[in-house]
Amino acid sequence: MPESSGVPLLIKGGRVVNDDCMFDADVVVENGIITHVGKDLSAPAGARTIDATGKLVIPGGIDPHTHLQLPVMGTVTVDDFYIGTKAALSGGTTMVIDFIVPDGKESLVTAYDRWRGWADPKVCCDYSLSCAVTKWDDNTAKEMATLTHDKGVNSFKFYMAYKNMIMIRDDDMYQAFIECRKLGATARVHAENGDVIWEKQQELLKLGITGPEGHTQSRPEELEAEATNRACVLAGQANCPLYVVHVTTKGAAETIALHRLKGTIVIGEATAAALSIDGHNLYHSCWLHAASHVSSPPLSQDPTTPAYLMDLFACGQLQLTGSDNCTYSTEQRKIGKGDFTKIPNGVNGLEDRMSIVWEKGVHSGKLDPMRFVAITSTAAAKIFNIYPKKGRIAVGSDADIVVWDPSATRTISAKTHHQAVDFNIFEGMEVHGVPLCTITRGVVAWENGELKAVKGSGRFVPLPTHSPAVFGSNEQRSIMLAPRKVKRDDD
Amino acid sequence: MPESSGVPLLIKGGRVVNDDCMFDADVVVENGIITHVGKDLSAPAGARTIDATGKLVIPGGIDPHTHLQLPVMGTVTVDDFYIGTKAALSGGTTMVIDFIVPDGKESLVTAYDRWRGWADPKVCCDYSLSCAVTKWDDNTAKEMATLTHDKGVNSFKFYMAYKNMIMIRDDDMYQAFIECRKLGATARVHAENGDVIWEKQQELLKLGITGPEGHTQSRPEELEAEATNRACVLAGQANCPLYVVHVTTKGAAETIALHRLKGTIVIGEATAAALSIDGHNLYHSCWLHAASHVSSPPLSQDPTTPAYLMDLFACGQLQLTGSDNCTYSTEQRKIGKGDFTKIPNGVNGLEDRMSIVWEKGVHSGKLDPMRFVAITSTAAAKIFNIYPKKGRIAVGSDADIVVWDPSATRTISAKTHHQAVDFNIFEGMEVHGVPLCTITRGVVAWENGELKAVKGSGRFVPLPTHSPAVFGSNEQRSIMLAPRKVKRDDD
Amino acid sequence: MPESSGVPLLIKGGRVVNDDCMFDADVVVENGIITHVGKDLSAPAGARTIDATGKLVIPGGIDPHTHLQLPVMGTVTVDDFYIGTKAALSGGTTMVIDFIVPDGKESLVTAYDRWRGWADPKVCCDYSLSCAVTKWDDNTAKEMATLTHDKGVNSFKFYMAYKNMIMIRDDDMYQAFIECRKLGATARVHAENGDVIWEKQQELLKLGITGPEGHTQSRPEELEAEATNRACVLAGQANCPLYVVHVTTKGAAETIALHRLKGTIVIGEATAAALSIDGHNLYHSCWLHAASHVSSPPLSQDPTTPAYLMDLFACGQLQLTGSDNCTYSTEQRKIGKGDFTKIPNGVNGLEDRMSIVWEKGVHSGKLDPMRFVAITSTAAAKIFNIYPKKGRIAVGSDADIVVWDPSATRTISAKTHHQAVDFNIFEGMEVHGVPLCTITRGVVAWENGELKAVKGSGRFVPLPTHSPAVFGSNEQRSIMLAPRKVKRDDD
Amino acid sequence: MPESSGVPLLIKGGRVVNDDCMFDADVVVENGIITHVGKDLSAPAGARTIDATGKLVIPGGIDPHTHLQLPVMGTVTVDDFYIGTKAALSGGTTMVIDFIVPDGKESLVTAYDRWRGWADPKVCCDYSLSCAVTKWDDNTAKEMATLTHDKGVNSFKFYMAYKNMIMIRDDDMYQAFIECRKLGATARVHAENGDVIWEKQQELLKLGITGPEGHTQSRPEELEAEATNRACVLAGQANCPLYVVHVTTKGAAETIALHRLKGTIVIGEATAAALSIDGHNLYHSCWLHAASHVSSPPLSQDPTTPAYLMDLFACGQLQLTGSDNCTYSTEQRKIGKGDFTKIPNGVNGLEDRMSIVWEKGVHSGKLDPMRFVAITSTAAAKIFNIYPKKGRIAVGSDADIVVWDPSATRTISAKTHHQAVDFNIFEGMEVHGVPLCTITRGVVAWENGELKAVKGSGRFVPLPTHSPAVFGSNEQRSIMLAPRKVKRDDD
Repeated sequence: MPESSGVPLLIKGGRVVNDDCMFDADVVVENGIITHVGKDLSAPAGARTIDATGKLVIPGGIDPHTHLQLPVMGTVTVDDFYIGTKAALSGGTTMVIDFIVPDGKESLVTAYDRWRGWADPKVCCDYSLSCAVTKWDDNTAKEMATLTHDKGVNSFKFYMAYKNMIMIRDDDMYQAFIECRKLGATARVHAENGDVIWEKQQELLKLGITGPEGHTQSRPEELEAEATNRACVLAGQANCPLYVVHVTTKGAAETIALHRLKGTIVIGEATAAALSIDGHNLYHSCWLHAASHVSSPPLSQDPTTPAYLMDLFACGQLQLTGSDNCTYSTEQRKIGKGDFTKIPNGVNGLEDRMSIVWEKGVHSGKLDPMRFVAITSTAAAKIFNIYPKKGRIAVGSDADIVVWDPSATRTISAKTHHQAVDFNIFEGMEVHGVPLCTITRGVVAWENGELKAVKGSGRFVPLPTHSPAVFGSNEQRSIMLAPRKVKRDDD
Repeated sequence: MPESSGVPLLIKGGRVVNDDCMFDADVVVENGIITHVGKDLSAPAGARTIDATGKLVIPGGIDPHTHLQLPVMGTVTVDDFYIGTKAALSGGTTMVIDFIVPDGKESLVTAYDRWRGWADPKVCCDYSLSCAVTKWDDNTAKEMATLTHDKGVNSFKFYMAYKNMIMIRDDDMYQAFIECRKLGATARVHAENGDVIWEKQQELLKLGITGPEGHTQSRPEELEAEATNRACVLAGQANCPLYVVHVTTKGAAETIALHRLKGTIVIGEATAAALSIDGHNLYHSCWLHAASHVSSPPLSQDPTTPAYLMDLFACGQLQLTGSDNCTYSTEQRKIGKGDFTKIPNGVNGLEDRMSIVWEKGVHSGKLDPMRFVAITSTAAAKIFNIYPKKGRIAVGSDADIVVWDPSATRTISAKTHHQAVDFNIFEGMEVHGVPLCTITRGVVAWENGELKAVKGSGRFVPLPTHSPAVFGSNEQRSIMLAPRKVKRDDD
Repeated sequence: MPESSGVPLLIKGGRVVNDDCMFDADVVVENGIITHVGKDLSAPAGARTIDATGKLVIPGGIDPHTHLQLPVMGTVTVDDFYIGTKAALSGGTTMVIDFIVPDGKESLVTAYDRWRGWADPKVCCDYSLSCAVTKWDDNTAKEMATLTHDKGVNSFKFYMAYKNMIMIRDDDMYQAFIECRKLGATARVHAENGDVIWEKQQELLKLGITGPEGHTQSRPEELEAEATNRACVLAGQANCPLYVVHVTTKGAAETIALHRLKGTIVIGEATAAALSIDGHNLYHSCWLHAASHVSSPPLSQDPTTPAYLMDLFACGQLQLTGSDNCTYSTEQRKIGKGDFTKIPNGVNGLEDRMSIVWEKGVHSGKLDPMRFVAITSTAAAKIFNIYPKKGRIAVGSDADIVVWDPSATRTISAKTHHQAVDFNIFEGMEVHGVPLCTITRGVVAWENGELKAVKGSGRFVPLPTHSPAVFGSNEQRSIMLAPRKVKRDDD
Repeated sequence: MPESSGVPLLIKGGRVVNDDCMFDADVVVENGIITHVGKDLSAPAGARTIDATGKLVIPGGIDPHTHLQLPVMGTVTVDDFYIGTKAALSGGTTMVIDFIVPDGKESLVTAYDRWRGWADPKVCCDYSLSCAVTKWDDNTAKEMATLTHDKGVNSFKFYMAYKNMIMIRDDDMYQAFIECRKLGATARVHAENGDVIWEKQQELLKLGITGPEGHTQSRPEELEAEATNRACVLAGQANCPLYVVHVTTKGAAETIALHRLKGTIVIGEATAAALSIDGHNLYHSCWLHAASHVSSPPLSQDPTTPAYLMDLFACGQLQLTGSDNCTYSTEQRKIGKGDFTKIPNGVNGLEDRMSIVWEKGVHSGKLDPMRFVAITSTAAAKIFNIYPKKGRIAVGSDADIVVWDPSATRTISAKTHHQAVDFNIFEGMEVHGVPLCTITRGVVAWENGELKAVKGSGRFVPLPTHSPAVFGSNEQRSIMLAPRKVKRDDD
């Protein structure tokens, strides 16, 4: 597969940044793999040299949370696996983990096959899949086993919101958590209290509040914190490591931190959106502008939330950033005119995540560059058990590499971005930190502002179970937590 | 009604302690009412003089949480309304608030009538009723309205545990909270996560853990904290004041404190048991001893919990103490031999609560005597909206009075207590603080170690809704929390 | 003393609000004392009747923190004991507790005499004194004893800031705390880390930051929280109850709450300023406007602080509101032109405190009217040990009474206020809650917008030590905390 | 230097554990350096093969906190640089960072020379030095600069306790923190409130409490938490990263965690002692036993503290473990008979740290093996800026390697340990996790229970300033925190 490995590369004069150290070194790439990292390397035969002087050489970003061409309520997200991954590359992201969301009673395996069928011919970079579990019956555990043993899926997602649609109840979720633990698969949750949201939605519609402000008013921040706490407790009781997706508010983030302090294994993911903008947009006087910011959990009304979340990344209590990229055209949003509960949920972020995390994290003085690499790439690789193949500049690792200019700036805009969606929630934001060149599996896919991504050149990366970063202490912990029987004469 | 008012009394030479101040004063009682409080009072005609020199004169205790002659799983708690209230008087408690627990689909009003029928002829002191709501359908709201408007009930209780029996689901509880707010009735919750408990029970029984240690292992502390948090959030969302009964563990108590700091109206009650003993007894090698400590939530395995809870009473983050008196003979406990889920739940406390709170609160240096009065009597009177008729030594108040010896000690024992139950979880505990004389509605019912309680002499005290101590800011808060509609041209 | 008692009064048709209950009742005042509280009272002979229909009848406000005619750095605060107390009455405050601040090495007793000499001839309402201790030597303990035993002072104040001026070091403060405990006097602290402030001041001045923004930048919020924590720990170690004056920021308030949860006896006071405005004014482009907001600790830069503090009042973790009224004319402020460290510190609040607390507390839905009374009056009376003489509408209490209109509004302005200062930090704020009539010791001093205050008619109220509200558990706590010696054979 | 490099080694069949991943691999060592890591490696010429089948191959432990042959109050700790480092090797530790403690007014540089003179000829493994700063004058900053620029010191330590001896005051410490930031040197603090300790010591001695229980009673836990908080705030204000040594109690640890959540750069170290035993020993009826546990801060009286601290290591809020090895013979302890303030402070831990952390961390189910490596080795290497030369099994790293048996157990005892001290605070503790073979700079120094350490074979490792793990965001943060001047017309 020549197009996926390309000519050898010598990346010269840069400063390599991994999550654990930074050092000046050249990097040689051959056949899609990093073959040398060191000072003053010479170019292999036929190699192209990329000048990285004064720049950083970092592992390509891994976005652990995307919804490309997701069918939702009769429509489909506009960024498909081709345009989505192409745009990702332009932003410095070289791998995505997308979600399978089975349709009603559809088997998990059937849904998996549908997703593979959509993605494989289109992806311009590597990808993996995580699977939503939206019901619980006798077959579900078996299907989960099949996906983990045979299909390269090592995580499952549970929705605690979207009542009467895909929401799962506590007792079922607890059972599923136990199953995840047995399989060595990570349990991921969308944490919002769906019961109260549903009641609030009815109340608000009755009161005539039908616009996007109803979306945020039906989903008060406390409901995210509550569900997060509940998920942490249930997971702790099941001795199942937990991964909370798109932590959006202070309360939810603080909940995770507090559970971690008490020894619960909880991983927190936050999105580029939550790390940079707040929810005042939902009250915008232009319906379309407001509707274009509808996502769940809604962006916080507290303008100090993004900095708070970044502080938690800095100290290690949140672990990885994603985009939850789930995009709709303004036409699609209009489905929800007159009823906010019908506005499709989701925003962009796949292309811009890396720059936004740099701006809000490193440029703000909160993160050092190593921690930036950790939360945009390495942590995801570790958690999804593909490290150090992914997430590290090291000999033997996949050549997913970005040459990063820490000082350059760019202004984000829907007019210039590469995604299909016609709105960008970061519109007008100037960010420091720009990807000059993105290499995926050893091939330059983005350079000098030009995309050279090749449709279908990416590969599906199977994810092994029992990630040491997640399950490393699980077995011993199970032993220590085992129930205890009292022996009694009179029993 | 001569037997309920008795001869006039002059309580002489004591130190009156209310929840807001302490002062040396005599107290005159006539016709069941306090008619004079002051220095050097002279006795009314025909009055008996009670010497209180060197003693405290305090409002009679109010126990907001009892289950007298409660039918449970085919049996009935052994302390009935006669023996229970008699024992209460011997311990310095002059009023109880008992729970109506409707049977299956029984109407709330029918159940109320049953309870009145049982209690009225038997009670030796005043009492009121609170009503459990164990299901939610079209009639429930109407019945709640009847009880509050016509029957003197101003609180309802919801069980978040006991799945498949009396547990209520979140969506129903949220609806009921909204109804409580409309009625001005306090919502009380038993907070434990019933779903997970149910799963744990099955797991443990399968593992052969059938003894009382299974009870505590199936109800980890985290499940009380989780449910408490959930209840606080739901109540906050419904703008309904919340009253959490029998807060038993640090996590639950801390949760309440944290919600209060954020402005939620939450009231926390703890039991004498939780304030003085811990749960190591559940692991006792004698089955009967262990089984006799079975209550829910189970007493904490952390021996520092009782002092922690008392600190929260000291600083005002917990509000009132009860007993959750729910007593079974050792014979009744044996129903659960071989299956801990069948051991009837509940412990004693009605008689000993006042002394235990004094010992662990005042004698320990954590509380001053005013705060003791607050958490054993006055707070209950305020919350249940019968203050200052109850809960205060003041002109015009009911003559429910205790002459309290702060320095005397006694040793608690089933052999000497006045309850019907043949086991006392406080067995052998030496406590400072002894009631020398208990007066109920102006009549001496306990003196010199002798009970003179009169069966049926107590009265049902109707509780008015919209207690200012609970609902005082509710209406204005509703206005401030009202949803907000954005006016848009393009909407 | 006819001028201090006046004609009898009948306040008719109002709703009496105390800190523990609210009820409709008439109030009769004779000879400066409340003589009857009840329904349908008839007027005593010669009485004037005040119509309070539809209004609240509340205890007059007590401001526990004023600096009237305080000499500071060569100038004197412009509101003296006459104008200050007059303005207080117009706002519904009927008592102030002012601070003696000894001059350098001056004896505490000498300073006390100076203050009495200034205040006694001028005050229009009752007042008491608290004394700052700004040094620690062999005589200090003796002088503290004299003030408490003979002079009616029951609290001392310590400055942890103002280095090289009146700041006291930790070791001295710890000694003084022990002395306070022995005397039964409350220790009050101004909590800011004076060492770091001093360093920051030098740094900023060196950088050319000389305007009022330097004031807030030299006193970051963290420094208030740090000193508050330190004071709580030192007081706890000395087993001395602590009273933190002017809690201004979230961090400091949270610190107090956390120490209270752990059983430390800490009382928190916040000012009208901190409860209603924030510190953005310090960055105002008009120097005079900015300089007129200089106070210490500086108002928080976080706009959500006032609501946070009010939530802590609602749940009982902050206890009483004061003004820290310490006013300078704009001319006086100009002393600090070119050097922010020379701008005199302090703002107004004495006149407006009651209305501001109503607006931000009750009108906002956070407090009920009883809690309003508690934090503006009753708590101060209890803490300073003059309850129920002050702080309560009850038979036998001083007739310091306000007829309060909860629905009326007024707009605060320097143009219309009654204080001497020519600037009002609350300028333009519309507040609900207006005092219609203020009665001090039975005499109407403010009515229909007219002041009838009489210079010198107020009295000095001696404050007894060992306030039960503060020291009620102290002795027993000392016993429980006593050091413990291990007996050893080989010792 | 042949003795320091030895013959080549092939470590075969083991599982390499680094802080970021675990994998089965052989390791080749040549000339003291790791030259190959991979599967099925063949032995270099002349190599010895070490069988690691079924064992872990981990980076040698780094103990960041020792006091070898420290002169204290006229005596010297009994473990000198020879015996101490030899014992270290037997326990799996291959590097120590010892403290220079200058004597009174001695120059830092002179003290440094003394320490080098003592250590260089004796050390059996590599070592570095950190320098205490116990006074602040014009020369101190210059000496700090000399040590960092010329002498390989990149950290300084400040004592907030030991008043009148080596304690530094807040204002001086703040100045020193600013200097540390400028130098890129890490500021380390011993956090206890020395002022209050000093007062408590006098109080207790006066009360006749002269035994070791006086030590712990004069140093209540709250004083460690207070000082820790103060140090965090001061460091934050100086924008200087902070390293808190020997975090011993929950309060201190929680304080660090809370400051980290808010973005402060704080690193927490805990000792083997604090992670495994508690302070009840100070009350032991045998004086010598009690005295042998005297260390500062004293071990917590709360038996749940060790597990709490380990949970904080698990979640990343504490970073590295040390020993604070500072050992005295029982004869030396007797200096303090009759006056606990004269008992020399310190306990052992250098030899046993690795096993204890494994037992309490990994065997308990709290840590995975990677996190074990992090907190015993890698984090220290990163923080002290010698990573990946130290702290990693990787090509090019120093061959400081331990073959670790995770399942083997041993029982700790003074009878069998290799330290000079005649008491072991871990006496009788059975631990899982045993070092089978310790390699220092490529030479086997401990194997089959035999020590082959060579006196003087270790080297001084200079530590470069500006460790990226500590200062990685410092410069950008300084820019963002720069003071802000308001431009005004009327200024």
